[in-house]
Amino acid sequence: MFTKTLRQAPADEVAKNAQLLIRAGFIHKEMAGVYAYLPLGLRVLEKIKQIIREEMNALGGEELIMTNLQPKAAWEKTTRWDDEVVDIWFKTKLKDETELGLAWSHEEAIVQMLRPYVQSYKDLPIRVYQFQTKLRNELRAKSGIMRGREFVMKDMYSLHVSKHDLDAFYNQAVEAYQRIYDRLGIGEDTFVTFASGGAFTKFSHEFQTICPTGEDEIYLHRGKNIAVNSEMIDDQGIIDELHRLQIEKSELEKVRTAEVGNVFNFGVDKAEQMDVEFADASGQQKPFYLGSYGIGVTRVMGVIAEKFADERGLVWSDAIAPARVYLINIGNDDDVVKNTTKLYEELKKAGIEVIWDDRDARPGEKFADAELMGIPHRVVVSPKLLAQNLLEYQPRTLDIAENLTTETLFDKLK
Amino acid sequence: MFTKTLRQAPADEVAKNAQLLIRAGFIHKEMAGVYAYLPLGLRVLEKIKQIIREEMNALGGEELIMTNLQPKAAWEKTTRWDDEVVDIWFKTKLKDETELGLAWSHEEAIVQMLRPYVQSYKDLPIRVYQFQTKLRNELRAKSGIMRGREFVMKDMYSLHVSKHDLDAFYNQAVEAYQRIYDRLGIGEDTFVTFASGGAFTKFSHEFQTICPTGEDEIYLHRGKNIAVNSEMIDDQGIIDELHRLQIEKSELEKVRTAEVGNVFNFGVDKAEQMDVEFADASGQQKPFYLGSYGIGVTRVMGVIAEKFADERGLVWSDAIAPARVYLINIGNDDDVVKNTTKLYEELKKAGIEVIWDDRDARPGEKFADAELMGIPHRVVVSPKLLAQNLLEYQPRTLDIAENLTTETLFDKLK
Repeated sequence: MFTKTLRQAPADEVAKNAQLLIRAGFIHKEMAGVYAYLPLGLRVLEKIKQIIREEMNALGGEELIMTNLQPKAAWEKTTRWDDEVVDIWFKTKLKDETELGLAWSHEEAIVQMLRPYVQSYKDLPIRVYQFQTKLRNELRAKSGIMRGREFVMKDMYSLHVSKHDLDAFYNQAVEAYQRIYDRLGIGEDTFVTFASGGAFTKFSHEFQTICPTGEDEIYLHRGKNIAVNSEMIDDQGIIDELHRLQIEKSELEKVRTAEVGNVFNFGVDKAEQMDVEFADASGQQKPFYLGSYGIGVTRVMGVIAEKFADERGLVWSDAIAPARVYLINIGNDDDVVKNTTKLYEELKKAGIEVIWDDRDARPGEKFADAELMGIPHRVVVSPKLLAQNLLEYQPRTLDIAENLTTETLFDKLK
Repeated sequence: MFTKTLRQAPADEVAKNAQLLIRAGFIHKEMAGVYAYLPLGLRVLEKIKQIIREEMNALGGEELIMTNLQPKAAWEKTTRWDDEVVDIWFKTKLKDETELGLAWSHEEAIVQMLRPYVQSYKDLPIRVYQFQTKLRNELRAKSGIMRGREFVMKDMYSLHVSKHDLDAFYNQAVEAYQRIYDRLGIGEDTFVTFASGGAFTKFSHEFQTICPTGEDEIYLHRGKNIAVNSEMIDDQGIIDELHRLQIEKSELEKVRTAEVGNVFNFGVDKAEQMDVEFADASGQQKPFYLGSYGIGVTRVMGVIAEKFADERGLVWSDAIAPARVYLINIGNDDDVVKNTTKLYEELKKAGIEVIWDDRDARPGEKFADAELMGIPHRVVVSPKLLAQNLLEYQPRTLDIAENLTTETLFDKLK
């Protein structure tokens, strides 16, 4: 492993998530809001992606990948090419001066691409998704990987023949998102909120995770599992909705959160603006209904880093840790090296990802690195315990080590 | 599957690879040189990537992912920020007018990122690689996915303490590349050529695959497995090298090729320009030796599409096909549907990827689509053969179908 833990993050890095991820060798800062993912960070990212991918596939989603470079034609049809309408475009030019955009989202591109495939009601529903690097020209980017100018997003789009079908799928997608956050270990602190969706939707929904350094605030009713984005709390529609649910504004708790996902109901607007129609059973041309469903994958990683970190460093769950076991040998006598090698090979054979810290370094340094990196299980092979056929084991989230046989260790890791 | 085969590719698409890939629903053209990868295309791409990934890991490579957005500092140190020096930059701006580049390669970014990790000779060698979407502002882009303005590249970088170590690794990388092309099915037609590497290297090497629509030409000696890029054939160094190998220029065969990979030996130049040094065993500061190793992943896919296609469409090998089996039911009577469903489930259970064309369409249409998509094995369930407990089987590369039992089919697919 080429990375080493670093004493310090760059002086200009103010976000805790990025400071820790940089020091632990998970990411590298290119500039504000732009981070490379080093091997440890890429592994976490890929595990988060795989959890999301499985849930998207379970919804019938088909994975594809759109492009960064965007010609302006499709975006002009919806007015979203205009920098006054969308103020986060990065734009560039071909050699012949043709202006291009760098995709910050893909609704228009997806609808344009799907045009030849949406002809009959028999072609619908269509559910497609991608993991795409989005570029957004954010004025400020001080939240580490929680708000990037370059970041990975999962975006899903669904096309339906009717409002009824879209609504049904939209609800399924909300449930899939909840399963995702559960699997990522933030389910209990993540709430679906009523949020603004601009002119096109009555309400969109956001998924907000309680996080003291988040950029958002929500009004929350934990008992009834209802939450409202603070910017929407005085909206008459929301007030009516709360009234219907028999909730007083005074009952709501104001908490700081980070947005970890959002879902939009575009209705038939995009289809109408872009003039893409299908023939229904009677042969009549109709616009389709569009939903879009985003998760900021790198942002979720940042929220998890930020939320679970303690004074010793990062803390990952088994589901998304870059490795499950951090293996440490104390000293280099033959017996220790032989037994550590054997354990390392056995762990790998059992499909348990393991980092073996075989550096010629003080035990304290190895322990500190294991903790900074947040690897869930630390296993130590020492001459003293070897004599009793034991290993030292400590989970990242507890302060107490225990001595185990190899067999018990494998039982714990199963 | 939302994609359908299309009668026609866009009128402005002149490259055979893109015409076929668009018609078969593998890719979508956003603009010249910029293509989205639809589910079938993405599957091929991921399979090619996985083959490359396995070989890079076997070389000790560690996977990471750098960024598209590039600040200019690192690139100015090597003069490569200048549009006169590198004429394929796409550039853009932050809101405060700070100029940014969109990465067309990553040597400078990698060296800059590695700075804190390269301190002692004990830190070397370092071998890192990524699959990255590169953006290049090509003047012309008429070769489909064989020359993209946006394309996927695998780039590996290796850092060493000495020329000797770099040379040894460089040769290992060349061998790994040959294994990759073998596994992709183009090994026999792919040659390592002496190529120009600009001012920094005596020779770089390219991997060139015979392809009638390629953009390059090489001079080839098949017997001695020696090839020279046509632009280098009159270079005095090359003339001397051929002389040493006792090869006359007149013995060389001129063939049209597509470049599918390249390797560069940068020596200590990048380390010196960017001022990154390590301490050797005696504590002396020294610049490291850098090699870089590229494969245009989407280009390789284009070359394979172009090279193996026949008049009926695409032809994929089992190693990279989006699915191995194209399953067709003839008619919809209960027995046919029941048996096709059973076979479909059995194939999936055996880990054999299968596309079941269950559309209510003429058999001829299904056969034509199977061929256009280039799926290696076609299996037909028909009422007539079912009565004899048989299936019809035809490989994509043969003109003759045969009748098999299910058992024999599975033996063939093993």
